[in-house]
Amino acid sequence: MTKKIILDCDPGHDDAVAILLAAGSPAIDLLGITTIGGNQTLEKVTYNARQVCTIAGLNEIAIHAGCTRPLVQMMENAPDIHGDTGMEIQGYQLPEPTVELAEGHAVDFIIDTIMSHEPGTVTLVPTGPLTNIALAARKEPRIVGRVAEVVLMGGGYHVGNWSAVAEFNIKVDPEAAHIVFNELWPVTMVGLDLTHQALATDEVEAQIKALGTDVADFVVGLFGFFRKAYQDAQGFEHPPVHDPCAVAYLIDPTVVSTQKVPVDIELNGALTTGMTVADFRAPAPADCHTQVAVDLDHARFWELVIDSIKAVS
Amino acid sequence: MTKKIILDCDPGHDDAVAILLAAGSPAIDLLGITTIGGNQTLEKVTYNARQVCTIAGLNEIAIHAGCTRPLVQMMENAPDIHGDTGMEIQGYQLPEPTVELAEGHAVDFIIDTIMSHEPGTVTLVPTGPLTNIALAARKEPRIVGRVAEVVLMGGGYHVGNWSAVAEFNIKVDPEAAHIVFNELWPVTMVGLDLTHQALATDEVEAQIKALGTDVADFVVGLFGFFRKAYQDAQGFEHPPVHDPCAVAYLIDPTVVSTQKVPVDIELNGALTTGMTVADFRAPAPADCHTQVAVDLDHARFWELVIDSIKAVS
Amino acid sequence: MTKKIILDCDPGHDDAVAILLAAGSPAIDLLGITTIGGNQTLEKVTYNARQVCTIAGLNEIAIHAGCTRPLVQMMENAPDIHGDTGMEIQGYQLPEPTVELAEGHAVDFIIDTIMSHEPGTVTLVPTGPLTNIALAARKEPRIVGRVAEVVLMGGGYHVGNWSAVAEFNIKVDPEAAHIVFNELWPVTMVGLDLTHQALATDEVEAQIKALGTDVADFVVGLFGFFRKAYQDAQGFEHPPVHDPCAVAYLIDPTVVSTQKVPVDIELNGALTTGMTVADFRAPAPADCHTQVAVDLDHARFWELVIDSIKAVS
Amino acid sequence: MTKKIILDCDPGHDDAVAILLAAGSPAIDLLGITTIGGNQTLEKVTYNARQVCTIAGLNEIAIHAGCTRPLVQMMENAPDIHGDTGMEIQGYQLPEPTVELAEGHAVDFIIDTIMSHEPGTVTLVPTGPLTNIALAARKEPRIVGRVAEVVLMGGGYHVGNWSAVAEFNIKVDPEAAHIVFNELWPVTMVGLDLTHQALATDEVEAQIKALGTDVADFVVGLFGFFRKAYQDAQGFEHPPVHDPCAVAYLIDPTVVSTQKVPVDIELNGALTTGMTVADFRAPAPADCHTQVAVDLDHARFWELVIDSIKAVS
Repeated sequence: MTKKIILDCDPGHDDAVAILLAAGSPAIDLLGITTIGGNQTLEKVTYNARQVCTIAGLNEIAIHAGCTRPLVQMMENAPDIHGDTGMEIQGYQLPEPTVELAEGHAVDFIIDTIMSHEPGTVTLVPTGPLTNIALAARKEPRIVGRVAEVVLMGGGYHVGNWSAVAEFNIKVDPEAAHIVFNELWPVTMVGLDLTHQALATDEVEAQIKALGTDVADFVVGLFGFFRKAYQDAQGFEHPPVHDPCAVAYLIDPTVVSTQKVPVDIELNGALTTGMTVADFRAPAPADCHTQVAVDLDHARFWELVIDSIKAVS
Repeated sequence: MTKKIILDCDPGHDDAVAILLAAGSPAIDLLGITTIGGNQTLEKVTYNARQVCTIAGLNEIAIHAGCTRPLVQMMENAPDIHGDTGMEIQGYQLPEPTVELAEGHAVDFIIDTIMSHEPGTVTLVPTGPLTNIALAARKEPRIVGRVAEVVLMGGGYHVGNWSAVAEFNIKVDPEAAHIVFNELWPVTMVGLDLTHQALATDEVEAQIKALGTDVADFVVGLFGFFRKAYQDAQGFEHPPVHDPCAVAYLIDPTVVSTQKVPVDIELNGALTTGMTVADFRAPAPADCHTQVAVDLDHARFWELVIDSIKAVS
Repeated sequence: MTKKIILDCDPGHDDAVAILLAAGSPAIDLLGITTIGGNQTLEKVTYNARQVCTIAGLNEIAIHAGCTRPLVQMMENAPDIHGDTGMEIQGYQLPEPTVELAEGHAVDFIIDTIMSHEPGTVTLVPTGPLTNIALAARKEPRIVGRVAEVVLMGGGYHVGNWSAVAEFNIKVDPEAAHIVFNELWPVTMVGLDLTHQALATDEVEAQIKALGTDVADFVVGLFGFFRKAYQDAQGFEHPPVHDPCAVAYLIDPTVVSTQKVPVDIELNGALTTGMTVADFRAPAPADCHTQVAVDLDHARFWELVIDSIKAVS
Repeated sequence: MTKKIILDCDPGHDDAVAILLAAGSPAIDLLGITTIGGNQTLEKVTYNARQVCTIAGLNEIAIHAGCTRPLVQMMENAPDIHGDTGMEIQGYQLPEPTVELAEGHAVDFIIDTIMSHEPGTVTLVPTGPLTNIALAARKEPRIVGRVAEVVLMGGGYHVGNWSAVAEFNIKVDPEAAHIVFNELWPVTMVGLDLTHQALATDEVEAQIKALGTDVADFVVGLFGFFRKAYQDAQGFEHPPVHDPCAVAYLIDPTVVSTQKVPVDIELNGALTTGMTVADFRAPAPADCHTQVAVDLDHARFWELVIDSIKAVS
C-alpha cells in the first residue's frame, strides 16, 4: 500500500534527493510539496523545489510556499553548506523551472489536505525547519489527531551540527520544534545520529553516475558541491545526505532502525537551545509517541535512492 | 474620520465593555471581531462574544474564532477573575446568542481584511493573548507594513498581575507577544500601569445604572461579578476595566497619554517570563516603534464608555 | 547606640563618600572595610580604599581585600562612570596611601568578625557586587543567623542602569545576589529607586566646598569627575551618590523610607538577568525578610554627609 | 613517582571505594580528604568519611569538612542511591569513627595545601558536587595556575542520571561546575559514559569477598546495598562504582582512555541545566584544557581496586 505524504522542505541538496526518492518510489504517493525558509530564503528554496520537480518531470505536483522565517528566532540560513542559491551544483546546468507554484499558503494546503483525507492516511515529512507544521497545528488543532505520523529529518540525540548539541532544522526554529514534538501525534525523528550514516561515498556516486540519465547527472552534480561544502565546513570526507533518510524509512522501515524514547526540545539553554533532549534512562513509557532513528542500512538505503532515480528519469 | 479596527478579544468582562465602546462610538468602524482562547477557552469566549453582540444589536458583525491555545506554553485561563463561563454576571440574564459565527479562521480574516483594505487604514486592537496576531504576521508577513497600528491591552512596564512583573495576556503566550512587539509596525501597549487607573467606581456604576437600558443593566451586571472577583483575587476595591482603554485611546488619544519607549518581551526568565521590558534609561530612539500608555483621563474615559452604552442601546 | 558595621565596597566615588559618612558618624562603629572587584579591578579599588582612609585619617582601620571577580559571570567594570583608576578626580591631588592592607581574606574577616561578636550586633553594608558576602554565607552558614542585617546598595525595583531593568552591582554578579537575597537574614535593598534621589546638586556641592577642609576638597573633586561621567554616560545633570544612602539609613532610618516586599533575583532572563524582582501585588507576608528603600529625605541625607565630612576633617 | 592528591568527596558508597583505592595505592600520596554535602548532608558524609578512614586505618589523615550546600541551587541529596545515612550497608557493622575531623574549612585546606606545595604537584580529585573547589578558586585565584590537574567524577557527555542529560554531581551545583570547567586548569571529566562501565559484577564481588579481610567485608557490604539501590532506582543489574575511576586514572592512565574536547556547563536550560556540554564537532583546539573519559579497562580497574583493598587491610 502506498503512503500518502506531504514533503515539507527547503531544497537544499539533500531535500532534492528526498523529492526524487519520494517521486520515484512506488510506495509513496506524493500529495504535494510545501516549502519553508531554511537552508536558504523561502524565495530561493521554492524556486529550487520547482527546478527539482521540473528535472524529475513532476509536472502536476502541487508546490505551495510557506513561511519565510521562524516563529520567534531571527532567520538563519546555511549558505556554507548549500551555497548562495541554496542548491549550488557542479557540472550540471539547472533548467528554468516549468512547474508552477500553486495558489494558497503551505499551512492551508497542509491543513486542507489532512482534513479532506481519511484520518490516519496522510503522513507529514518535514525536512526543514518546522515552522509550517507548527503553524498548521496551531491554526487547526484537529490535524493532530488525523495525521498518520510525522517523520521528520532534524535533531540528533547525541550529535549536533549547528551547535555542540543542536541540529540546524531544530535550532533555527526551536519553538516550532517544541510545538511539533509536544503534540501527541506519532513523531519519528530521523536525526543526525542516523543521517551521518547516509554518506554519499565514491561507490554510491559511481553507481549513480553509471545510470547515465539527466536525473542521475543532476544528483551527481549535487553531490559534487555538497561534498566540497561538507569537507570545508564540517570536516566530512563524504557528505551526509540527510533528508531522503526520512522518506526511505517510510518506503521500507527496515532501512532505518528506531527506538522509542521521550524527546523534548530545549528552548532556554545558553548552550543547548534547540537540542532534542532524549531521555534514555529508562524504557520508554507505553504511551511514548516519539521515536528516534538509530541505525541505517546503508546499502539498502542507496539502493532505494538509485531505484527512484531510475524511475523518475 | 472613523478608524477601521479589528477587535481581537477573549470576552471576558472588560472585553465585553470594549466591544460596546467600539460598537457605539461614531469614531470607530468595527470591521469584525476575532476571538482567542484566554480569559476562558476559545469555545466559551466565542460564545460570549456572540452574546455581547446580540445584546448590543451588532447583528451584522463578522465574528471569527481563532486559536485555541498559546504557541508554546500550556494553556492558562483566568476563572478566578472571569468565572467559569468567562463572563459570569450578577443580576442580569444573558440571552441565547442570535449572532452567528462567521466561516473562516480569525487569522485568515485578519490577513484578508488587511490585505483587501488600503495600506495604513486598518488598526488591530488585541485585548487577549496575542496568538492570532502573531500567527497572522508569520503566515502573511506583508500585513506588518499595511497595518495602521497595533493598539493592544496587555503588559505593564511597572506592574504585573500574573506574576510579580508580568501581565496575563502577555504571560500566557509570551512567544506570540515577542513576535508582535518585534515586528516593526507601530505598537501601543495599553498595560496595567494605565488600566489600573480605569476603575469602575461606585459613581461610574451609578451613572451607568441610571441609563436604565438593557445594555446598561448588562454592564452593571458585569461590574457586579467583576468587582467581587477583583476584591477576592487581587485585593482591589473597584475593578480595573482594562480592555476598553485600548479602544478609548483610538477614539480620543487625549484620554490616554503615552510615552515612546523600546519594549521587548522576556522569554527565558525564571521569574520574569512574559515581562514587557521597557527601557526608560534614555530618550527613545527616533525609530522607536513602540509606546506605552501612562496616564488615563478617568472622567473622559468613562464619558466615552457611557456615550457608547447609550448609543448601542 | 552605635551600630557596628563592615563596609564591603569597591571605591568608586560614591563608595568613598560612604566611607567618609561611616567614619565621621558617631552613630557608626566601622569595624572594617572589605573590598571587592566591581567599579574597577580589586587591585584598583583596594588601592582607592587605602587612599580614602588615608585622607580621612582612618589610620587604624582594618582593610581586607576580597574577591577579584564574580562567581559565575565574566568580570565587568564601570570605567565610564568611575574612570580608569576607579576613582578619578578633578582638581584634587590624591595622596599615596599610608594606611596598609590587613592580612587575611575579606571573606574570612567578615566571618571571623561576625562569629566573634554577639549575635545580632554586626551589620553588613555591601555597596559593590555581593561576591564576598555570598562566599562568606556559603563558607560559614552560621553567619546568616548572627548578622543584625544586610543593608546593601544595589538593585532597583523600577529602575535599571546596567540594563533596562538591572543595576550594576547586582547585574555583574547575579548569582552572588541570589545567594544574599535568598538567605533569611534581614535585607534592606537601597536601590536606584532611592539613590537616584541622592543627587549632588550645585547647592550641596557649594555647601561642601564652603567647609574648606582637605576632605571637603576631596569630595568636591570626586563630584567634579562623577558629574561629568554621569552627564556623558547616563544623561544625568547631577550625579546620584548611591552608596552613602545605605550608611545614612543606618545612622537615621527616617532619612530613607522603606517598604517590606519580597525580592528575588532573576538569573536566567535574556533581557532581565540581574533584575531585583519585587512583588508588590499583595501586602508582604509576615515573614518577609526583605525591604526596599523608597523615598529619601534629600536635605537630611546631605546634612548627615556634611556632618561626617566635618567630623573626619 | 607518586601523585599528591586531595580527595574532595561525599561518601557515599563509591566515594568510600575511592578513598580505599587512594589510600592503598603506592602511586598516590593522599594529602587529605575534604567533604562536601552531596550524596547526603555534610554532617553525614563527613561522619562517613571518618568511618571509612577508621576502617582503612588512615589514622593520620587530615579530614576537613567543607560546604553544606550548593552555591545557588537548593540542596538535593540522593537517599535512593545511598540510603538515609549516605553509606548504608548490608551485613557489615560500621564502627564508631576514631579518626577525628581536622580544624579549618575544606576550602582553606585546599587553598593552603596548593599554595604551600610546589606548583604543578597537587591534583584535585573531586567526586561530589564541586562547591568546595569552586569556592577555593574564587577565594584564591592563584590556585588555578598551581594545581597539577583536576580529575573529577561527574557529568557525562552522552549519559545522564539526575535528568535526561545531567549527572547528579554537576546537576546539584551547576554554578560550581561552571566555575571549575571554565577555569583554565587541566580538567579530566570522568563521567557516566565511563563510570557506567565500572560495574561491580558478581565476579568482582566474589574476588573481593575471597580476600577475607575486614576491609574486603566492608566493600562487599557496600556493594550489597548499592546493588539493590541501583536495581530499584535506575534499573541496573550491577552497580556502577563511579568515584574510584577518577583515582584509577591517576594511578594508571591506561585504565581510562580519554579524549580532548571542549566541555562547558549549561546553567539556563529548562531540560538541560547541569549538562556537561561537550563539543565533538571538530578536533579539539590546541589549547583545549578539558578532556573526557571514554573507555575503561574493566579488568585492570578492578585489579587496582583489589590491590588497594589488600594493601590497606
